[in-house]
Amino acid sequence: MLREKIVKAVGYCGTKGLPELRRLIAMDIEESFGTHYDPEEIIITEGATEGILLSLFAVLNKNDEVIIVDPTYVGFSEPIKLAGGRVKTIPAFVDDGYQPKVDDLESCITTRTKAFILLSPDNPTGRIISAGFAKALVDLAVDRDFWIIYDATYKHIVYEGENVWIPKFSGAMERTIVVNTFSKEASIPGLRLGYTLAPKEVIEAMEKIKQYTSLAPSTLGQYALLKYYEDDIKGRYLKEVVLPTYRRRRDLMGELIRKHLPEAKTVMPQGAFYYFVDMSSYLEKMGRDDKEFANRLFYRKEVVVIPGSFFGKRGVGHVRLTFVSEPEERIREGIERMGEFVFSYAI
Amino acid sequence: MLREKIVKAVGYCGTKGLPELRRLIAMDIEESFGTHYDPEEIIITEGATEGILLSLFAVLNKNDEVIIVDPTYVGFSEPIKLAGGRVKTIPAFVDDGYQPKVDDLESCITTRTKAFILLSPDNPTGRIISAGFAKALVDLAVDRDFWIIYDATYKHIVYEGENVWIPKFSGAMERTIVVNTFSKEASIPGLRLGYTLAPKEVIEAMEKIKQYTSLAPSTLGQYALLKYYEDDIKGRYLKEVVLPTYRRRRDLMGELIRKHLPEAKTVMPQGAFYYFVDMSSYLEKMGRDDKEFANRLFYRKEVVVIPGSFFGKRGVGHVRLTFVSEPEERIREGIERMGEFVFSYAI
Repeated sequence: MLREKIVKAVGYCGTKGLPELRRLIAMDIEESFGTHYDPEEIIITEGATEGILLSLFAVLNKNDEVIIVDPTYVGFSEPIKLAGGRVKTIPAFVDDGYQPKVDDLESCITTRTKAFILLSPDNPTGRIISAGFAKALVDLAVDRDFWIIYDATYKHIVYEGENVWIPKFSGAMERTIVVNTFSKEASIPGLRLGYTLAPKEVIEAMEKIKQYTSLAPSTLGQYALLKYYEDDIKGRYLKEVVLPTYRRRRDLMGELIRKHLPEAKTVMPQGAFYYFVDMSSYLEKMGRDDKEFANRLFYRKEVVVIPGSFFGKRGVGHVRLTFVSEPEERIREGIERMGEFVFSYAI
Repeated sequence: MLREKIVKAVGYCGTKGLPELRRLIAMDIEESFGTHYDPEEIIITEGATEGILLSLFAVLNKNDEVIIVDPTYVGFSEPIKLAGGRVKTIPAFVDDGYQPKVDDLESCITTRTKAFILLSPDNPTGRIISAGFAKALVDLAVDRDFWIIYDATYKHIVYEGENVWIPKFSGAMERTIVVNTFSKEASIPGLRLGYTLAPKEVIEAMEKIKQYTSLAPSTLGQYALLKYYEDDIKGRYLKEVVLPTYRRRRDLMGELIRKHLPEAKTVMPQGAFYYFVDMSSYLEKMGRDDKEFANRLFYRKEVVVIPGSFFGKRGVGHVRLTFVSEPEERIREGIERMGEFVFSYAI
């Protein structure tokens, strides 16, 4: 019996993934968000990364336009181009809590607009999209006939209020592709497993392309995930361990930024596990851009931050800090060193 | 310590894969084939599937031509098109033992030819490419400046003589991309792991694209492969268990085809684990094409064969049989049922 399980775990499964895992996902999504997906409307992917790529290949024709927020995750622009599409952006500013504006979205839509990619909670800003923007987005998608590719990577990593769940809005489900990953909610990025929820015809198109990107998801990893659901590790581990830990780190990091980097501008992240910090005031005095700053900070103080310009034009002058895997004493040490570093320049 | 290993096994690794695994692969390749690759000339992929896709995205520009053999593996044409390329084919016939001809290759090359994909041992034909064709291919690649994408999926599944190892030929290494998988040699397709060997600049281009196809290979699966090399499971399991088992099945299946399907034409596979069988003589009498034949055979006799037309235009009238995972009594039963099936039509 065990032997049989081992043999199965190293054998191929279908391109869409194990049916029993897709059934458990459907149950979890229904329980968590109240929307019903059939297992045939679910495909298992290599994290969210492959979900994004396959979604884009499934819906885009050559030169179709895809709108993204600037700044946002670095992994959207290149796959849009790989799939033959064109990248359009709408801005988001720290003073608005990084909420994009409906007017900007509306004026960005053309007859070539095929999709909008929404990441909420967002990386790098931690922003949860407002219900108002979400509702307007869905109405525009219906009205102007484009897809919402909703990257729900951080859907369970929420500290304040509730994340919007796009498929819940009236008319949204048949034009929303929800890209998910187990990397964050189960803390297992090394297993490279995620899943996408979408209308059956989109899943079928994704399945065809997946035959040429990875052929099938890892059977071994999927067996581990059956256990994750069956033993309710998700419910216990996520709520009782992960979220309280992240929340403490987030609160501490926010406090330390205010104390040691008083001229920096940022908003407390409502979800995910990053602070996106506008350092322009310091950078101007130092005569450095965000990339030079990140390099020198690492060289002088051994503190790693990601330059904001990696996340788009509007990220220039920012840096991204993460509190996902650092214990509190290291968060304290890191921000203190950043403070010393900018102070040593300022005098 | 164990706890630390578990945490590492579910964490991200770099996009190219674990350095220690790439070092073990380099040692294995040098020992098996006498060619030296630096770990920086190796990238871990999701089986050979992702290796093929990334190779094509790395080297092709829009409308570049890629030459493949017809028939060959079904997974080449679509990725060529996804990467913006055009598919060109040269034929291979059962009467030549499915060896393509140098003249056909030469006349297929144009100024737009960017690559030739060679699969040896081949799926579906089991053909090992002749040393003469391989040498001519390398000379043409040097002379006419194109890449050889050498799919070495079945490199260790060889029954007769030796498989050619393309990088050994003079001038070949700097223009050959060798796509490999652990699926066949370690019998672990469910782990979705393989690797590609190529000049450093190709590996770097593949690494960039892999950030958007799968981000990184499974850390957990790579830990299993460290064990596979360290315990020399490869040496023992492959030579002492896998190959003798496959060889017995191959010999039996060949004998049964001759006995129960005397009008079929095929060649005994020199490698891999398939028979590609030209059934034209029977199909004509039956008034069926290979797809209809495969459907009806399954419906009437519960025997699964793959229609030859899936493998290219020259595969029409053929079916592919596999002996990889079937014990001998089932191989016997299957071919006997095929014999009964064609006989019931012939009378």
